[in-house]
Amino acid sequence: MAELDPGWDVGGGILNGGYLLSVVGRAAVLESPHPHPVALSASYLRAPAAGPATLTVVPGASGRTLAHSLVTLADADGPALTVQTTTATLGSGPSEYSHPMPEVPPVEECFSVAEHRDLAPAGVQVPGLSLRVDTRLDVATAGWAFGQPSGEPVLRAWMRFADGREPDPLALLTFADALPPTSFARGNLGWAPTVQLQVLVRALPAPGWCLVEARSSEISGGWVDEDYRIWDSTGRLVAQSRQLARAPR
Amino acid sequence: MAELDPGWDVGGGILNGGYLLSVVGRAAVLESPHPHPVALSASYLRAPAAGPATLTVVPGASGRTLAHSLVTLADADGPALTVQTTTATLGSGPSEYSHPMPEVPPVEECFSVAEHRDLAPAGVQVPGLSLRVDTRLDVATAGWAFGQPSGEPVLRAWMRFADGREPDPLALLTFADALPPTSFARGNLGWAPTVQLQVLVRALPAPGWCLVEARSSEISGGWVDEDYRIWDSTGRLVAQSRQLARAPR
Repeated sequence: MAELDPGWDVGGGILNGGYLLSVVGRAAVLESPHPHPVALSASYLRAPAAGPATLTVVPGASGRTLAHSLVTLADADGPALTVQTTTATLGSGPSEYSHPMPEVPPVEECFSVAEHRDLAPAGVQVPGLSLRVDTRLDVATAGWAFGQPSGEPVLRAWMRFADGREPDPLALLTFADALPPTSFARGNLGWAPTVQLQVLVRALPAPGWCLVEARSSEISGGWVDEDYRIWDSTGRLVAQSRQLARAPR
Repeated sequence: MAELDPGWDVGGGILNGGYLLSVVGRAAVLESPHPHPVALSASYLRAPAAGPATLTVVPGASGRTLAHSLVTLADADGPALTVQTTTATLGSGPSEYSHPMPEVPPVEECFSVAEHRDLAPAGVQVPGLSLRVDTRLDVATAGWAFGQPSGEPVLRAWMRFADGREPDPLALLTFADALPPTSFARGNLGWAPTVQLQVLVRALPAPGWCLVEARSSEISGGWVDEDYRIWDSTGRLVAQSRQLARAPR
C-alpha cells in the first residue's frame, strides 16, 4: 500500500509521472535483494487519483548482480501504471567515460519557477510539483515564460527538493520527469501525457543541486519524445530517461 | 508460437536482442486493434535458445489512439524476455520538429562488416546478424576494426536487410540493437549483454537505407548505456532506442 500525495500534481489534479515512478521504485527496492533501482520502464495506463494506492510486486529473474520485477500501481479504479524494474547496487566510483555537463549559469542567475508563479502565461497553471522540486530554469531555455519561446525543444534547470532533502536514486526517478514539457519551448503550453517512460540510474548522486536537461528529437503525428540527462553537483552523469508522450495540441 | 532463427546470432549462439524484440513486436501487433508498435520496453532475463518459442500476450488498457500489452517470450527453459508494448497507428506526414541526420559518407564509401569478415580482430567473431543486416560503418567510427579505436563511444552505419526487404516498423525494432557494442569504439571488443531496452518507433520508414547511430553517455561500475537514433533514406528520424547493458570487461 502507498498513499499518493496530492501535492505532487502537474495541474488539474494529475500526479507527476516521475513522482509515481519513485513510489514504484521504492516498492521494487523493498522486495529486492539489491538496494538501488538501475532501470525502470513504465507504461502509463491512466492517471491515478491521489490517496490510497496498491503496489503489487511480482519478482522476476534474480541473480548476484541484479534482479528483475514487474510492479503494478493501482487505485480504486484499477491499474494505472505497470513498471518493469531492474535493481542492483550502484557505486560512486569514477567513470570510464561520461558525457560532459553543458555550460549553464549558476543557480542564483537562473529562473525560479516557484518564485514566478504570477508570471505564468495565461492558461498555464504552475503545478504543486514546482513547490516540491525547486526548479531553476536556465534563462536561455525559459523564453516561453515571457512569451518568447526559443523554438528549440530543449529545457535545462537546476533541481533539488524544496525541503532540503539531498538527492538519492529515488529522487532521480522523480527529477527524470520533472521539467515542463519540452513543447513549452516551442510556445505550445499544453499538457503532454506520458505513454511510456524509461529511466536509467547510473550512479549515486552527490549532495547538492542536480542539472536536468530535456530534449526532443522528433515531434510529429501527435507524438513527442522527451530525452533527459541528469548530472549531479560534481558534474557526473547520474541518470537518463526517455519517454514517449502525446504531443499537446 | 514462434520459431527463433539461429541465423540471427551475435556470436556464441546468442540471438540478437533487436531480432527478439521484432518477434515480440509482431505478436503484439497481431493481438492489437492497432497496426504498429510505437513503444516497446523489454527486460532481458536470459538468452533464449534458437528453435521453438512461446509468445504470451496479455492485453492491457486499450483505446481509440493506442493499446498496451505485456508480452512474454519463453523457450523450453522458461521466460527469456518480458516486454511492455504500446501499439498505435503511425503516419508518414511531415514532422513539426526533427533532429537532423548527421553528415555521413555515402553507402559505397562506408565499411561493409559482412565483406570484411576476415579483418575481424582476433577474438571477435563476426556474427550471423551481419549477414542478415547489411551494415556499412561510417569509417570515422570504424577505426577499432583496424586496431585504431577512436576512444569516443559512437558508432554509425547505413543499414538495410541483406535480402532486399524494405524497412518497416518491425525492421526498426531490429536495427535499434544491430550495431556492435559502442565499447568497440573504445577498443573493448567484448560482448555487452542487454539488461533493459526501450525502442520508440516514430514514423513509417521510406524505402532504402536507414542511417543508424549509437552513442554512450556514461560507462562506469560495469554498466554502459547505448542510445540509438535511426533516420530513413529521406533523412527523417524514424526510431530511437536506449538500453542499459553490462559493460564488457
